[in-house]
Amino acid sequence: MKPVLLDCDPGIDDALAIALAAGSTDIDLVGITTVAGNVGLSLTTLNALALREFLQLGDLPVHAGADRALVRDQIHAAHVHGTSGLGDAVLPAPVLGASDGHAVDFIVSTILDRPGEITLVAVGPLTNIALAVRREPRIVQAVKEMVVMGGSYTRGNSNPAAEFNILTDPEAAAIVFGAGWTVTQIGLDVTLTAQVNAGLLEKMGALGRLSSLVVPAASFYGQVTADGGPALHDACAVAYAISPELMGFTDARVEVETVGRFTTGMTVTDFRSDAPNTRVATSFDVPGFWEVLLGAYGRLGERLG
Amino acid sequence: MKPVLLDCDPGIDDALAIALAAGSTDIDLVGITTVAGNVGLSLTTLNALALREFLQLGDLPVHAGADRALVRDQIHAAHVHGTSGLGDAVLPAPVLGASDGHAVDFIVSTILDRPGEITLVAVGPLTNIALAVRREPRIVQAVKEMVVMGGSYTRGNSNPAAEFNILTDPEAAAIVFGAGWTVTQIGLDVTLTAQVNAGLLEKMGALGRLSSLVVPAASFYGQVTADGGPALHDACAVAYAISPELMGFTDARVEVETVGRFTTGMTVTDFRSDAPNTRVATSFDVPGFWEVLLGAYGRLGERLG
Amino acid sequence: MKPVLLDCDPGIDDALAIALAAGSTDIDLVGITTVAGNVGLSLTTLNALALREFLQLGDLPVHAGADRALVRDQIHAAHVHGTSGLGDAVLPAPVLGASDGHAVDFIVSTILDRPGEITLVAVGPLTNIALAVRREPRIVQAVKEMVVMGGSYTRGNSNPAAEFNILTDPEAAAIVFGAGWTVTQIGLDVTLTAQVNAGLLEKMGALGRLSSLVVPAASFYGQVTADGGPALHDACAVAYAISPELMGFTDARVEVETVGRFTTGMTVTDFRSDAPNTRVATSFDVPGFWEVLLGAYGRLGERLG
Amino acid sequence: MKPVLLDCDPGIDDALAIALAAGSTDIDLVGITTVAGNVGLSLTTLNALALREFLQLGDLPVHAGADRALVRDQIHAAHVHGTSGLGDAVLPAPVLGASDGHAVDFIVSTILDRPGEITLVAVGPLTNIALAVRREPRIVQAVKEMVVMGGSYTRGNSNPAAEFNILTDPEAAAIVFGAGWTVTQIGLDVTLTAQVNAGLLEKMGALGRLSSLVVPAASFYGQVTADGGPALHDACAVAYAISPELMGFTDARVEVETVGRFTTGMTVTDFRSDAPNTRVATSFDVPGFWEVLLGAYGRLGERLG
Repeated sequence: MKPVLLDCDPGIDDALAIALAAGSTDIDLVGITTVAGNVGLSLTTLNALALREFLQLGDLPVHAGADRALVRDQIHAAHVHGTSGLGDAVLPAPVLGASDGHAVDFIVSTILDRPGEITLVAVGPLTNIALAVRREPRIVQAVKEMVVMGGSYTRGNSNPAAEFNILTDPEAAAIVFGAGWTVTQIGLDVTLTAQVNAGLLEKMGALGRLSSLVVPAASFYGQVTADGGPALHDACAVAYAISPELMGFTDARVEVETVGRFTTGMTVTDFRSDAPNTRVATSFDVPGFWEVLLGAYGRLGERLG
Repeated sequence: MKPVLLDCDPGIDDALAIALAAGSTDIDLVGITTVAGNVGLSLTTLNALALREFLQLGDLPVHAGADRALVRDQIHAAHVHGTSGLGDAVLPAPVLGASDGHAVDFIVSTILDRPGEITLVAVGPLTNIALAVRREPRIVQAVKEMVVMGGSYTRGNSNPAAEFNILTDPEAAAIVFGAGWTVTQIGLDVTLTAQVNAGLLEKMGALGRLSSLVVPAASFYGQVTADGGPALHDACAVAYAISPELMGFTDARVEVETVGRFTTGMTVTDFRSDAPNTRVATSFDVPGFWEVLLGAYGRLGERLG
Repeated sequence: MKPVLLDCDPGIDDALAIALAAGSTDIDLVGITTVAGNVGLSLTTLNALALREFLQLGDLPVHAGADRALVRDQIHAAHVHGTSGLGDAVLPAPVLGASDGHAVDFIVSTILDRPGEITLVAVGPLTNIALAVRREPRIVQAVKEMVVMGGSYTRGNSNPAAEFNILTDPEAAAIVFGAGWTVTQIGLDVTLTAQVNAGLLEKMGALGRLSSLVVPAASFYGQVTADGGPALHDACAVAYAISPELMGFTDARVEVETVGRFTTGMTVTDFRSDAPNTRVATSFDVPGFWEVLLGAYGRLGERLG
Repeated sequence: MKPVLLDCDPGIDDALAIALAAGSTDIDLVGITTVAGNVGLSLTTLNALALREFLQLGDLPVHAGADRALVRDQIHAAHVHGTSGLGDAVLPAPVLGASDGHAVDFIVSTILDRPGEITLVAVGPLTNIALAVRREPRIVQAVKEMVVMGGSYTRGNSNPAAEFNILTDPEAAAIVFGAGWTVTQIGLDVTLTAQVNAGLLEKMGALGRLSSLVVPAASFYGQVTADGGPALHDACAVAYAISPELMGFTDARVEVETVGRFTTGMTVTDFRSDAPNTRVATSFDVPGFWEVLLGAYGRLGERLG
């Protein structure tokens, strides 16, 4: 099983991504680190802890990380994810607290302890990853793969130019894309094609206890119709870690705009560059994605009862 | 006939646009103003004068304008348009020189003399238009329509973020989009769909003397195959002036980035804004475009012999 | 007599500068052009017209120019100059209106008509000058000297980094400093040393009718004590035109910051540059200045009665 | 004795500052952390280790930190400090290596272990401090005082706007000045007044073995004359920690420009702000400084023999 470390800010689609990882037989989730993003750090950490217990992930390490963006004032997306960060999903309060030690230290030590093995999947603002890179540059060589859910090569979602995760901490994103590794970037261009629809939601309703998480989550931030609904951005990145063949990629140089008046947080993507730093997801097998997701949810649902 | 004033930087596709205007029975070309852009001002003006004579446009006013961008160092695109600016097309040297008076003065007086009548079509950098707006703000109310070929709402061509005309003078573009009128913007999103192909080029080869202009021009900056070839950006804007029904539009607020490290010259397009300043072309009847273009070229070709 | 064209935004210290020019026997004021700045264009023009009549300047041309900054939203300084722009000074309403023709056209034609003769003194935002330079680049060679009151090489006044005239239209200032001529810059570093004090104000009170202008003006924007009071920025620039030997200069390259978050409008002054574009005033004979000013005011006061 | 943690990039004046700390009877140097700056991290660390042994500082912890700026490409000042970073001073190669553990971790643990006690003096780029603040925000409350040598409120030294330490990592500086504590800023405005002269250099030549460090160091980056010579920037900050009464301060809000074209790295200092975040050194008892410095050097020289 592929060892995966997930850095996230749950967040509705983060929750759905964690559930996907929990149900997968292909990846081994070795830890969760949290960062301020969709909601504040205390809530993203609380949600990660609640998910650990609800999903029966045992003593999976959960480490809290950065409580604000690297340089800028923090922005949140509570208008998207609800004030709890999990929309209408209500989980039991967690019994256990976060693991000792800062997320950045856990990221560094996890990667250095298993050189060439860890797939780091970041689905929130990149503050923890940037701090880890600057704190211990050797992780750049030691990581197996750096997968980022964020950005786009066409248009943004927080504003016309920028996607939320990158906009929230553009300097961190600039560090991560410029760190010297090849980032696997899964941006809005593909994730927006993975929209829940009524048929999918019906299947998610037949998962026992798990349905009480995934149905309200998947339907919270947008109306679900026969034709479409909310996109499960973060779950796409975990699905890629499970089944890389779901996506097609094009090499490009990605620069993060940190200066623009209207464009800060944009991932400016040059497909003609002869100095590429990123594999940009440019195609997505959406039916295959749903198959992976529902398969994992099915297994997990049975386990949870 | 609709009176049209064309501000341009010939330029290959400018030449094809002027030919389109010359052959149209729907628009009355009342003047050409030139600006530095694809090549320097002396060449864009020389080309405009050569085109006036080759296309037998009589004493059509041709006024030279700004020889550099408003604030920035001038950039050119001679690598795209050839050192002459007209690719492989060779026109007789013009006998007559440019009209007296600066392009900006001509733009201002033409619009103010016929309030509510003039359609101003700008297919080069927007320096002249910006200077005219600041020199005489009343043209904003007095113009009938301000049509701009430039920008895009997805990706650029000079670089991943910016289209050439806007990149060349972003401050001028910011002035024009912010002037208070509603700009009709025809950007790369639609113009890139109007690509010459082998079949079209063959038809352009049967226009008599006119073929000696349009064939080398249309095939200069990219290979023409059965499936596609160079896009005739500027001609699209003139085609719109002739037949507005060729395009569909969506209201948006367009802001021009003037500050970004990687995004300067981008037209950041917010389709959700409640303060729109632009009608953005979002659909294009490409077969209809070729019909308009070839119709006009056919008439013009007969006239020129 | 040295022919001087004054571009200004009256404005209290503009008024005192016009009075200085009017009383001088060394310079010949050939026209006044107005620009939006301390207050809006209609007021700066109205004030210029009122001053023309109050100071008995006959048919001196007064041309209105740009009503807003080149690219940015207009800012004003009515909190400094009072809502009228002239503080507590109350002048009779002017009988005559502004001359026909835009300030930019007047600047261009005045300079081109007398090549090598005209000293252009700009004491407001540089919008008109920038438009003139772009409209007719030949004025750069044809002007005798371009004198700018604006900027500083240490600290600003509108904010820690920027002086008001430059901050109001930084893009225009960037055009002017980069136009290819050598700007004579008279910045806050010297003008702030020319502060009215109680003794000087007393002498200004003994000028007959003229006192009704200069006393309330000179004492409006700051308390006058024995040791100091408001600085007469604009009058310093006119005093330089009258008596260049009042100031010492150092060559430098001045770049105008147009992008900074906290520094836009700053004149970044590099005294070590080997590509200087500016003579920066770095010393000032303040007693000599007051002698020139009071001498001119004395003559003018007698003339006005 | 006041416990002081010194973050530095030796660097000539860093070396002179470490020697000052070593000879002081008022401060207790509890550790040295190094950062890339004047020269690369491997050299600044090597120099710190060599200084520890040369100055007989025993087992003083020396921890290596960030090897590059937070977001930007690293710049160095080898042209100022020589390729070794210590000018013409040649120290024996150190026997011992750096302490285990990253500088950022050492900063965090040292401050948290002794809440309210540690004076943190940073005389290089602020990368380590910024990483520490983001890694453990509680240090902001737990530190006794945060002293920064860097910036200026008038003019820079690396360029007209920016001082070297801030220019090298402006984003880190923005984090540090905005962290919520009150920074004690000792900038060029005061440090440039502490220039070595011939008389002082002579006294530094009578310190035994110590002279072999301080004389070539103090005279390396600029000619020493009777009237002046190089300024010992970093030593001023340590002198302040020893004798705070040497300097006078004015409260101000300092913002670090991170965006400007010509002004990035400038500390924009607003003395009129009602939200000050910094005590800015605005006066300096220079004779008192030399007395403190030479007193400490005298004691240290005797100790070293």
